[in-house]
Amino acid sequence: MAGNSFGDLFRITTFGESHGAAIGVILDGCPSNIVIDEAFIQSELDKRRPGQSKITTQRKESDTAQLLSGVFEGKSTGTPIAILIPNEDQRSKDYSHISNKFRPSHADYTYQMKYGIRDYRGGGRSSARETAARVAAGAIAKLFLKQHGIEIFAHVSGVGTIESPNLDYTDLSDLLDLREANIVRCADPATATEMVSFIDSIRKAGDTVGGRISTVIRNLPVGLGEPVFDKLHADLAKAMMGINAVHGFEYGSGFEGSKHIGSEHNDIFSKEGDKTVTRTNYSGGIQGGISNGMDVTFRVAFKPVATIMRDQPTLNEAGEETVISGKGRHDPCVVPRAVIIVEAMAALVIADHLLKHNAYLNVRK
Amino acid sequence: MAGNSFGDLFRITTFGESHGAAIGVILDGCPSNIVIDEAFIQSELDKRRPGQSKITTQRKESDTAQLLSGVFEGKSTGTPIAILIPNEDQRSKDYSHISNKFRPSHADYTYQMKYGIRDYRGGGRSSARETAARVAAGAIAKLFLKQHGIEIFAHVSGVGTIESPNLDYTDLSDLLDLREANIVRCADPATATEMVSFIDSIRKAGDTVGGRISTVIRNLPVGLGEPVFDKLHADLAKAMMGINAVHGFEYGSGFEGSKHIGSEHNDIFSKEGDKTVTRTNYSGGIQGGISNGMDVTFRVAFKPVATIMRDQPTLNEAGEETVISGKGRHDPCVVPRAVIIVEAMAALVIADHLLKHNAYLNVRK
Amino acid sequence: MAGNSFGDLFRITTFGESHGAAIGVILDGCPSNIVIDEAFIQSELDKRRPGQSKITTQRKESDTAQLLSGVFEGKSTGTPIAILIPNEDQRSKDYSHISNKFRPSHADYTYQMKYGIRDYRGGGRSSARETAARVAAGAIAKLFLKQHGIEIFAHVSGVGTIESPNLDYTDLSDLLDLREANIVRCADPATATEMVSFIDSIRKAGDTVGGRISTVIRNLPVGLGEPVFDKLHADLAKAMMGINAVHGFEYGSGFEGSKHIGSEHNDIFSKEGDKTVTRTNYSGGIQGGISNGMDVTFRVAFKPVATIMRDQPTLNEAGEETVISGKGRHDPCVVPRAVIIVEAMAALVIADHLLKHNAYLNVRK
Amino acid sequence: MAGNSFGDLFRITTFGESHGAAIGVILDGCPSNIVIDEAFIQSELDKRRPGQSKITTQRKESDTAQLLSGVFEGKSTGTPIAILIPNEDQRSKDYSHISNKFRPSHADYTYQMKYGIRDYRGGGRSSARETAARVAAGAIAKLFLKQHGIEIFAHVSGVGTIESPNLDYTDLSDLLDLREANIVRCADPATATEMVSFIDSIRKAGDTVGGRISTVIRNLPVGLGEPVFDKLHADLAKAMMGINAVHGFEYGSGFEGSKHIGSEHNDIFSKEGDKTVTRTNYSGGIQGGISNGMDVTFRVAFKPVATIMRDQPTLNEAGEETVISGKGRHDPCVVPRAVIIVEAMAALVIADHLLKHNAYLNVRK
Repeated sequence: MAGNSFGDLFRITTFGESHGAAIGVILDGCPSNIVIDEAFIQSELDKRRPGQSKITTQRKESDTAQLLSGVFEGKSTGTPIAILIPNEDQRSKDYSHISNKFRPSHADYTYQMKYGIRDYRGGGRSSARETAARVAAGAIAKLFLKQHGIEIFAHVSGVGTIESPNLDYTDLSDLLDLREANIVRCADPATATEMVSFIDSIRKAGDTVGGRISTVIRNLPVGLGEPVFDKLHADLAKAMMGINAVHGFEYGSGFEGSKHIGSEHNDIFSKEGDKTVTRTNYSGGIQGGISNGMDVTFRVAFKPVATIMRDQPTLNEAGEETVISGKGRHDPCVVPRAVIIVEAMAALVIADHLLKHNAYLNVRK
Repeated sequence: MAGNSFGDLFRITTFGESHGAAIGVILDGCPSNIVIDEAFIQSELDKRRPGQSKITTQRKESDTAQLLSGVFEGKSTGTPIAILIPNEDQRSKDYSHISNKFRPSHADYTYQMKYGIRDYRGGGRSSARETAARVAAGAIAKLFLKQHGIEIFAHVSGVGTIESPNLDYTDLSDLLDLREANIVRCADPATATEMVSFIDSIRKAGDTVGGRISTVIRNLPVGLGEPVFDKLHADLAKAMMGINAVHGFEYGSGFEGSKHIGSEHNDIFSKEGDKTVTRTNYSGGIQGGISNGMDVTFRVAFKPVATIMRDQPTLNEAGEETVISGKGRHDPCVVPRAVIIVEAMAALVIADHLLKHNAYLNVRK
Repeated sequence: MAGNSFGDLFRITTFGESHGAAIGVILDGCPSNIVIDEAFIQSELDKRRPGQSKITTQRKESDTAQLLSGVFEGKSTGTPIAILIPNEDQRSKDYSHISNKFRPSHADYTYQMKYGIRDYRGGGRSSARETAARVAAGAIAKLFLKQHGIEIFAHVSGVGTIESPNLDYTDLSDLLDLREANIVRCADPATATEMVSFIDSIRKAGDTVGGRISTVIRNLPVGLGEPVFDKLHADLAKAMMGINAVHGFEYGSGFEGSKHIGSEHNDIFSKEGDKTVTRTNYSGGIQGGISNGMDVTFRVAFKPVATIMRDQPTLNEAGEETVISGKGRHDPCVVPRAVIIVEAMAALVIADHLLKHNAYLNVRK
Repeated sequence: MAGNSFGDLFRITTFGESHGAAIGVILDGCPSNIVIDEAFIQSELDKRRPGQSKITTQRKESDTAQLLSGVFEGKSTGTPIAILIPNEDQRSKDYSHISNKFRPSHADYTYQMKYGIRDYRGGGRSSARETAARVAAGAIAKLFLKQHGIEIFAHVSGVGTIESPNLDYTDLSDLLDLREANIVRCADPATATEMVSFIDSIRKAGDTVGGRISTVIRNLPVGLGEPVFDKLHADLAKAMMGINAVHGFEYGSGFEGSKHIGSEHNDIFSKEGDKTVTRTNYSGGIQGGISNGMDVTFRVAFKPVATIMRDQPTLNEAGEETVISGKGRHDPCVVPRAVIIVEAMAALVIADHLLKHNAYLNVRK
């Protein structure tokens, strides 16, 4: 209700500000007896971590996850799992210049007006630093889903006007290797090179740029999703729109599909051995809000980062015109690091819906 | 949790199947002492009603709302408002041919697999008929929001590849008049003519087409939205993605904005008299997930209707190949009727967030 | 949130006022493929119905349940089940004398102050008439639980200072027969006779009296209950305290147990064949908030009905002193009819927790 | 849903096991600009802390609260407040003897069966140590309520068969002084002396005893509580029943009131200056589930502590009979420390309902 929890049965609640003592998360509803692979959690955090490459922010954070509860002898116990990630490299003085100014297209103004107070340091709670907590919890969701054979793969499919060609999704682990082989996390090597070069030029110009992330979820059982409001794609949309800087979500044929005619767009059912499949997948693996066993596919759009290394006119808290300079350490483009956040939130949605569906699985005949 | 409720404080729960006795809704959490204008509720339902024009389904339903509770001497009492809408023109026998076949790109297969049983008549619960209940509740949300000066306006901005030019949003009631002057509900008259003609040709070809709806919400107070997960746009996204046939959502600059660079995209604050405004509105009236007082703008993409008046190959429940014919009464394009559903869901989101914000308004200093 | 829903996965939302058009309920989250025995639902409603005997209110209501949705060919479909119960014998004019007076120990004053408006007829929403909706939904919960062998039995164990001796709980269906053989619903025949006679004398004196109901739930699987807040007994307590006129709840050894010393009170584990049991059951079948497989036992206290057939001083809406007379048709003691409400709410709690537990059953190893 | 959260708008989620690294809580939905008095939080924790006196457990914990987020320059910011309480004096080896045995009337058996794994050290999650997190969050709730003039006072009104006489509730701060003047936290000095002596004798006998706590909440506005399910007393009941060892709850006249007749039990309204009051308060300050402005009163029953310093027969995980010895450091009676837990949970319930009511306060006319 107060907005810092996500999920119903597999539920996270996050806390923490960019420049406070720590950020963290409580995961409530994780099934018991899941092997909690701390090295995997850390490797996921490392992919989101600042300071990875020349095209990410230079803030130095080890983002070391401390598991405080809910795990006993390496396994989940079914009780809440609390994870703490201390903040290390805050440099709060970088922000004294904005303590009473509203940065354009940031949340400074709305937080101040809504709450009548704000921790201005690094954007406080509105900073994307909070998403590290989501990644840590998402890593546990992935460990749970892996037991069920479910895979999630996201990559950067667009930066500015650069678009990746459609990928061959046959082997997701091959794609993962390709993605991790470059710093922009696009699984198409040629496009990746182009993107890196473009982001670097944008960075040098003190500017920023937006981008797009495409995701595929594989091996879902048929039946996830709770119509009419908690459709699987509706919850995926909410999860993605809750990530900082996201301005758009589409699944399956998406916006482009709204230009189609029905006779082209319908996905015809057929049999592939024992399995019911569709010949095309404009439905993005979801029909009537429920997974149909095909790949679930969606795409997310991120606006350009609002902090640019330039002077911009703005207002201060007194409502007077002033000028704000670009300072601090920021990403010229969020999508390379956001890939792992998108995967984490997708994993959390799927874990939650898997449990919901499972609640009825033994009692529905 | 089970998926048929939406909202927290201003909360609806809907029920009913396409060919059952009735559909309806309970609205729990409506503030007391709202004048419940039944004629207005009915007029909203009339805009969503089937059989309005040659480009909508010919099913005949009066969609008469019966208020069963929660209203006393014309005003809301603060107790649950139940609204019943009897089904009248079911013609269930139109559906006997699909009782054991899965219509392509419909929810027949996923409902059957999820629940092990389905009311196949007219798609049962997965039918868009259920949205009449949302419109009735949304009408009450609008009555509540009107007290606070909040206006919501949606119109059809795209059908197939036809796109409406950008509107001048100065006067929303003028636009409403323009929209209601044509059967496709596009507020640009020339585009509307083109759309109607195109949809009619598609209908005659036994085919269907997708479309897009654009929405503006005006006069929101600053402060609606509950980060980090229940951001205003995240809840709008979930609400819209929960409408039948929706495949995409974007707010503010949306997908197009993800191609921009930051120095172009930032919305610069300035003063307009006493009011803080932004010179541009790429943020779509929402920053950090919280309304900033500017117009909230978003766009929704609808896939083409899955039922076409043609033979299509498919599978039956036994997994055998078969052919399904197009029968029944269906819309060639959903967007003309969906405009009012989009407005209703938007009104429900805003009403809920207004109450949430209000919960803290007297206690935050 | 707005208070008219109960349960998470197996969730009801009720609506309706004592003298409105109808009362009713939506049950969301009922598993599919449950045989919905309408005759059983009606028989449950008949046990709660007014006008059953000389010791209940003489209001005449057939309390006929109409199933509007969620059932297809006699079985639940997994979609919301809406049940409507029309009001028939309202006699609202009986209440014109209280339209601007606050009846002592009723909800007139608090509703008026909270909402600024109230439907004064028969107490409006605060009337126990609303509980018929709970009984209808509870009947479906019982049908679901019966599939799992779970039995629920409640009876009147106290009226005024009259206390039933402890029952032999070996055979619950025998006890049910004994209970239904008398109009006060106490399963001990001698006590029942005494209670009926006492209530009748109280009724003739124009007065009312309180009472107590004892309940046993049998054949629960081990594992129901979600610590640390949603303990099984905590949710039972909330369910019971939400019934009109209830002032107390205790489970297992209850208030009496708080006078014990630990060495007497501990329940020693032992084996009964393959089954783990406890030699005593002071724990009331729940340890650490989780069912342990023994009988779950609890007791509920009801205050005397507030409407008495006598003149009482009170205030009117203007705050002036006035006198209110006892009119209308009321129960001299609620417990004979409340037995079935207690069972219904218990069934709803257990159904909800059974689904919650089941959500993890296949994934916990 | 997973059971470790309480409240809707003012919502806590706790984590931690008795012998893990730490316990803690996230409080989401605390209004902004509340002065967060850390010394007060600590003083509340000190009242619940182990090792206070000869009649409490001798485990040594400083229970130092660390505020990790949500507070800026001494005030709440409206974002989640995370509080960490490290565990210091675990002595887990005290528990090796129970690693595969089920202690009688503890949660060992049910946790093992429900989750298939358990942290046996000190009872793990089922330990009352977790309630320190509730006390920390409850302290913040009290700071919030104090701004609104709302006071909460609890004391030990019964230990074993010893009962405190009814208190004169005129001055709650006087009573607080009386309560804190003795180690059993009973505000009647003579009874306190008797209780202390009795508990000490019980302790020396290696045994334990149950008790009762009575609470009064003063200066509530009229209107808190959300019928029909989220009645104020229903949420108080759930909150109290969720505290370890609680077996009973009653409010107002409680179980005793169920023996009354209506003409004695009704609370007659009258005017005290401008204020509407009732001459008696059998209603316990709540009518129809809504606060009426009078003192809210309730009583809670605690069973005797299950750990006794004696040998008891029991079963091990293999289902074999065995003997368990009483070891570890435990309270002979929980009520002296539970007083502050009861107050904390009451404060959390009231804070939540105050916000809920406030959500409608400006919009209801």
